[in-house]
Amino acid sequence: MEKKLWKHIQLVKQNAPLVHNITNYVVMNTTANALLAAGASPIMAHAKSEIQEMVSIAHSLVINMGTLDEYWVESMLMAAETAHSTKKPWVLDPVGAGATSFRDRVASQLLAYQPTVIRGNASEIIALAKANTTATKGVDSTAQSNEAIEAAKTLINQYHTMVCISGETDIIMDGSQTIFLKNGHPLMTKVTGLGCSASALVGAFIGDTDNTIEAVAAAMSLIGIAGEIAVQDSNGPGSLQVNLIDKLYTISEEEFMSHLKIERR
Amino acid sequence: MEKKLWKHIQLVKQNAPLVHNITNYVVMNTTANALLAAGASPIMAHAKSEIQEMVSIAHSLVINMGTLDEYWVESMLMAAETAHSTKKPWVLDPVGAGATSFRDRVASQLLAYQPTVIRGNASEIIALAKANTTATKGVDSTAQSNEAIEAAKTLINQYHTMVCISGETDIIMDGSQTIFLKNGHPLMTKVTGLGCSASALVGAFIGDTDNTIEAVAAAMSLIGIAGEIAVQDSNGPGSLQVNLIDKLYTISEEEFMSHLKIERR
Amino acid sequence: MEKKLWKHIQLVKQNAPLVHNITNYVVMNTTANALLAAGASPIMAHAKSEIQEMVSIAHSLVINMGTLDEYWVESMLMAAETAHSTKKPWVLDPVGAGATSFRDRVASQLLAYQPTVIRGNASEIIALAKANTTATKGVDSTAQSNEAIEAAKTLINQYHTMVCISGETDIIMDGSQTIFLKNGHPLMTKVTGLGCSASALVGAFIGDTDNTIEAVAAAMSLIGIAGEIAVQDSNGPGSLQVNLIDKLYTISEEEFMSHLKIERR
Repeated sequence: MEKKLWKHIQLVKQNAPLVHNITNYVVMNTTANALLAAGASPIMAHAKSEIQEMVSIAHSLVINMGTLDEYWVESMLMAAETAHSTKKPWVLDPVGAGATSFRDRVASQLLAYQPTVIRGNASEIIALAKANTTATKGVDSTAQSNEAIEAAKTLINQYHTMVCISGETDIIMDGSQTIFLKNGHPLMTKVTGLGCSASALVGAFIGDTDNTIEAVAAAMSLIGIAGEIAVQDSNGPGSLQVNLIDKLYTISEEEFMSHLKIERR
Repeated sequence: MEKKLWKHIQLVKQNAPLVHNITNYVVMNTTANALLAAGASPIMAHAKSEIQEMVSIAHSLVINMGTLDEYWVESMLMAAETAHSTKKPWVLDPVGAGATSFRDRVASQLLAYQPTVIRGNASEIIALAKANTTATKGVDSTAQSNEAIEAAKTLINQYHTMVCISGETDIIMDGSQTIFLKNGHPLMTKVTGLGCSASALVGAFIGDTDNTIEAVAAAMSLIGIAGEIAVQDSNGPGSLQVNLIDKLYTISEEEFMSHLKIERR
Repeated sequence: MEKKLWKHIQLVKQNAPLVHNITNYVVMNTTANALLAAGASPIMAHAKSEIQEMVSIAHSLVINMGTLDEYWVESMLMAAETAHSTKKPWVLDPVGAGATSFRDRVASQLLAYQPTVIRGNASEIIALAKANTTATKGVDSTAQSNEAIEAAKTLINQYHTMVCISGETDIIMDGSQTIFLKNGHPLMTKVTGLGCSASALVGAFIGDTDNTIEAVAAAMSLIGIAGEIAVQDSNGPGSLQVNLIDKLYTISEEEFMSHLKIERR
């Protein structure tokens, strides 16, 4: 599989997929730059008057709930519905799920349109499952990552989706297989929006592929490895944000392959 | 007092206060990164459907009027009211006060909820006082900074708030004491949003403290000193923006204490 | 003319024109920093409650359609109408023209207020002309740049505007003369929002000038040359974004004059 991940990275550079992002204000610039650096073409658009047309011209859709409000939620729902009904791949990034009842309601409505991939951290995935599945509430798990895996399973069963739990180890699950990625660096958590950029890259990688779980693993390992390498030349989170974009653009096959830490079960 | 300022900086790193920002589009990314670099946890959220819940889970609230509109103003008012009624500390950054009558009206409505701290430049503080206090209009002062000090006094008396006038010298006043900070560098005025980041840091520092004026002085001196040191490695305002974030993250007690220029009257 | 371009650059630094931007979320930070670095004073404001007042205090207006929605469109139209009726110079950046029928309708409504300058890439200029002029649809041209020149001519005739087609060669036309600028670097297309920053700089340069086409050429050559020089110290698009802002701030007359590639017909 390792060799195949690099092929996905090359494919994005060759095909420059158009990725339609309905994302939060905080990360729009970084996300657009991450997509451009990886070879994709970003569109950011949210107007109800054009949302369906935009979804239809894009290769994929990414919905990120970060700075949602009532208007944006309507746009998100229209976009998700269009993606679902036209079988366009789409990613849900449930930022802040569990923080307010509004976010839980919105996440619940979006899930009904069966995202191709859900990417969130452990607590967001757990919150989604608690609010939106018929799973027994008292999932008995001591460690949070185990609890998140159980939560992911219930989401996968109920919504026929794939789940990527990001964290120190990224866990990608599709119901039949599970991939563990151990790339990345703790300093990346001090840069705002790298999770959001990861979701956008996942969107780019699943835009035109015949193997979605591999594409997700390629996107997640790309940003993890680029971050790891970028940290080496960084003096803190400010320069890491800059160097990570550079590395997404310049990463070589050798750099990628020599850093890749992947495990499959 | 000098030693105590460093303790406030350490406290933020230890406690990672949750800072709820209703701020402008221009600076959201920088502000979130500045908060993360200083050790705080940023939330950016503005939807009326969740604003009260968000205020209630955060340690403090920062309202920045930069790119306000009618919807955002309603959210700001709901948030300020919630903060006021639940005694949650909050910061008002009255960006562009005095520029339009809309901004003056909004600032006036927000002031009614008695911000814990108002942070603005001299002309914003003067505009606030002119529009919202019973101060004699013709404040007789030749220098703008003197006029701002008079304006701050009337705001403090009328709204039981603290005022931080930022500029070449930052002036922090609470009615009984006045602190002067002479850190910072002129190149910082060429980077957008450093004032906004300063307000956000003030929000982080007053989130959990028993000495608010000291906390404000710690936040303002932190960004001023980090900026001063960051300028040394910068080729212009672009690299300064990056290096400042790095320095907020890496600053040592020795660096901080050796640069601090504080005076108390 | 070459010597005169540098004078325009100096004028902006001396006069610090106030540039009112109604622009997209993705580029607000970069745009504000580019304007500051070039010596201008950026305002970002879009509330209908203050838009006319803001237009009236600014030296110029820049309308960028990037992340438009129904509310923002109303603001854009109010601002354009105010600029037109008060003879305030204004720039239209028709981001994504041609992508959706909503964008075409909005562009059409904005054109009615006769922008001083339209700056877009070839496909945007062609889309604008197709949707909004009485030009014969089947413009006979093989190359896209030729087609864009024909499109620009019809826009100039119909709306009494100036057009800047940006690309590998920037083409600036006012009906009587045409200026070709060959500065810039391909890596600049991998940084989001440099076209938007170029439009904002055009706004700054036409804010107070007696020779608009020269001012446009000065703004466009400034960002092209700053980009070219900045690339030399960059490891990818992340550091280019940072270094470009630095160079807009530090560029010397000698650097500018020795890189300038301009041709007039």
